Amino acid sequence: MSTRPGGRSARVRDAVLAATYAELAEHGYPALTVDAVATRAGVHKTTVYRRWGSVDDLLADALDQTRDTPWALPDTGTVEGDLIAITTEVAEAFGHLAVPTAVVAAAFQSPRAAGALRDFYAARQTQAALVVVRAVERGELPADVDPVDVVRTACAPLYYRVFVTREPVDVAVAERAARAALAAARAGVI
Amino acid sequence: MSTRPGGRSARVRDAVLAATYAELAEHGYPALTVDAVATRAGVHKTTVYRRWGSVDDLLADALDQTRDTPWALPDTGTVEGDLIAITTEVAEAFGHLAVPTAVVAAAFQSPRAAGALRDFYAARQTQAALVVVRAVERGELPADVDPVDVVRTACAPLYYRVFVTREPVDVAVAERAARAALAAARAGVI
Repeated sequence: MSTRPGGRSARVRDAVLAATYAELAEHGYPALTVDAVATRAGVHKTTVYRRWGSVDDLLADALDQTRDTPWALPDTGTVEGDLIAITTEVAEAFGHLAVPTAVVAAAFQSPRAAGALRDFYAARQTQAALVVVRAVERGELPADVDPVDVVRTACAPLYYRVFVTREPVDVAVAERAARAALAAARAGVI
Repeated sequence: MSTRPGGRSARVRDAVLAATYAELAEHGYPALTVDAVATRAGVHKTTVYRRWGSVDDLLADALDQTRDTPWALPDTGTVEGDLIAITTEVAEAFGHLAVPTAVVAAAFQSPRAAGALRDFYAARQTQAALVVVRAVERGELPADVDPVDVVRTACAPLYYRVFVTREPVDVAVAERAARAALAAARAGVI
């Protein structure tokens, strides 16, 4: 089996992981089965069992693949614009709530999914924090700011509303969260 | 059946709802059953079925009871102290992660639990926002601040870490989150 990018092995992985997300979106984590993923992907189920083993391995690999997919960091010229672009992207992702909900819910039931989710967000936060690093280089923010904490503070209210308090999110909420994080960074408290 | 506070009916409710939380903490939402709750509470299961009907009704009533239980609002004399007291209380609640985790997880699977969770946080946020209202009255914060949004911004990073990015929380994290919300409030952005 080829393992080079774009080879048959990679195409199988793409199809299977896309099917994993589609099944999650339609039926949620509790109903996720290897058989349904294999059927949807058009791959024999023994292939899926041999390569992934379980639904938790499928979910973890899907998160790993998303984590490793290049993601376009905003570069608007100001940290305010960049942070708003990031929080707005998060808010818009919640327009298709099924997948993020299924993934966050899965982490409550599966330590493997929880670990993959932690790795996913660690990578994304580190990437997103580059907008803060660049802002420090431009002199927009104090040098001792914690770049990851600025990103965390900007994004947290969106997730908190969607997954905990179950309040709506929209672009106005995203902008306010970004500006709140920025105000805290400028004040030197994060 | 008496419905006055402290009567037999209230004692049955207290026992059943305490058993609901205990079962949730030990076994999680997916394993919650009316029978196990009844056994733990020492109440006949037909009593529980007749009064609550389902595990979702038990969970929702438990959240409603917690929501309606008087909660000691901090009053340290400054909004910084009050917000830190609130976020520290949230961080400490995560020391016993089983119950909050089970409740937040249940909301992913049960619209009834999701509704009860939303009502619970709406009530708690409104209560907690009084520390911001008092700060405005004392002249510590601008009059056009959104009190609930200050509380939301202060608490969100804790929940985000615990339930989404799966990062640890401690008192230092709680203090930083409170100060970040305060800086945003002082800057007039929330």
